[in-house]
Amino acid sequence: MKIAIFNEDLLGAVTGDRITDISKVTNWDRNDPHASFLKLMAHYDEWKENIEQEIASGVSYPLNGVTLKCPVPGAGKIWAAPVNYLKHQEEMNHQFNNAPRTIEELSLFLKSPQSLSGPTDPIILPFPERRTDHEAELGYIVGKKAKNVKAREAKDYIFGYFALLDISIRGNEERTWRKSFDTFTPIGPWIVTEDEIKNPNDLAISLWVNDELRQSGSTKYLIYDCYKCFELACDHMTLHPGDIIATGTPEGVGPIREGDRVKISIEQIGEFTVDVTI
Amino acid sequence: MKIAIFNEDLLGAVTGDRITDISKVTNWDRNDPHASFLKLMAHYDEWKENIEQEIASGVSYPLNGVTLKCPVPGAGKIWAAPVNYLKHQEEMNHQFNNAPRTIEELSLFLKSPQSLSGPTDPIILPFPERRTDHEAELGYIVGKKAKNVKAREAKDYIFGYFALLDISIRGNEERTWRKSFDTFTPIGPWIVTEDEIKNPNDLAISLWVNDELRQSGSTKYLIYDCYKCFELACDHMTLHPGDIIATGTPEGVGPIREGDRVKISIEQIGEFTVDVTI
Repeated sequence: MKIAIFNEDLLGAVTGDRITDISKVTNWDRNDPHASFLKLMAHYDEWKENIEQEIASGVSYPLNGVTLKCPVPGAGKIWAAPVNYLKHQEEMNHQFNNAPRTIEELSLFLKSPQSLSGPTDPIILPFPERRTDHEAELGYIVGKKAKNVKAREAKDYIFGYFALLDISIRGNEERTWRKSFDTFTPIGPWIVTEDEIKNPNDLAISLWVNDELRQSGSTKYLIYDCYKCFELACDHMTLHPGDIIATGTPEGVGPIREGDRVKISIEQIGEFTVDVTI
Repeated sequence: MKIAIFNEDLLGAVTGDRITDISKVTNWDRNDPHASFLKLMAHYDEWKENIEQEIASGVSYPLNGVTLKCPVPGAGKIWAAPVNYLKHQEEMNHQFNNAPRTIEELSLFLKSPQSLSGPTDPIILPFPERRTDHEAELGYIVGKKAKNVKAREAKDYIFGYFALLDISIRGNEERTWRKSFDTFTPIGPWIVTEDEIKNPNDLAISLWVNDELRQSGSTKYLIYDCYKCFELACDHMTLHPGDIIATGTPEGVGPIREGDRVKISIEQIGEFTVDVTI
């Protein structure tokens, strides 16, 4: 199922080019989407049949007539994987002349949950004079509390997947700071529930800036795959429902500037395009 | 006012060696301390007089007969300052032979909100074979939403102060990861509201391991003082009520091991002692 938040914080399910309002059937409280979303994830298995009936018979709208919002209302925390594709490791170590660093050495880093934004929100550059890059990534949302869960069991704890832009200022500051500005983690266009993704570790991922293809990769080249990232993010640490994992970006990262339009597309998930402003 | 959470998630106010239950007068819901705490901060100015009356006439208990819990129930995020005292910068750059790094270069980093624990909870070492250090710090909790607030106005956005241990594994991984394990941010013993701290940038701070004094400094030696840290944490980023800032540690950091007892004390705030376990 493709689960979206749209217009004035309604909950929707997307099928083809239409979206059905599933707020009623999920007891959705648009005044508290965060708590409502946690309930949705907790009860999804039991509510699924009712939601599907609503999709079949309920009120739907043309998708291009609604405004899609950030599909995760109020994340807890965001763990992200640095240099998690070999060719991206090479380009980073080449471009920035660092001592070569690998994900095996670096492990994960945190992004601020307030950096989250939606698939129709602009990326706002805080320091337009500094190099600020696009990074196209597969992201996912944790559905159940987890600690010391191994990669082989991680699948059961993931609620769903989405496309994610990990916007990054280059420089010597802490990675966690350079990537945590407001609007630096656009996600969308919706959440595709885990049961509909055949293999998250084999999805084509592409990014364009103003129709120029800049990144073209596949999650099959992840060094730490989706499940290994999960294992790492709960190794002696607690993951909560609503936490997000960003799995890292393939090669081809590069600067974005005011006026650019950035499009990300991931196989089996969908695509969205956001403006870059100051 | 010294605000504490005690026993089965009751809200208390500490005066001398006694604690008064102020749950009723603050509409405290022990089943949802997080939401209750946000309400307390939002209404503190109007509720203050009633709370003071309750302290004067309400039911109180000997402090040493209650169990103090983590005084911040469910932080949003934790921004922390690296190498924010000159002598600590020197010891770090000397001990770990890094390229010299400064806070001006590094800026802030995030710790996981799930690393928070209370003044009676043990520090649990996830990897006992790795060097894991104590870092004594002054911490504070944000009381109001803030973005692009300057240092000179920061005081108005801070709800209160507490002692904080920033437990840190040494190594080459991302700083944010090495400091984010569960139990790696004990805070306490309570929150001292902002109006009772004369000058947060002039407080003696000490730490003992098994009665041996290891750290003895003062926040007057902070490179970025409490207010400058605030400015940095909301520079093009949003701080929310309930977010925490850890201001950095003075010199004298060193390893802790299973069986150790770590005591932190901060002038005008108080002290607490926690065990180290595996």
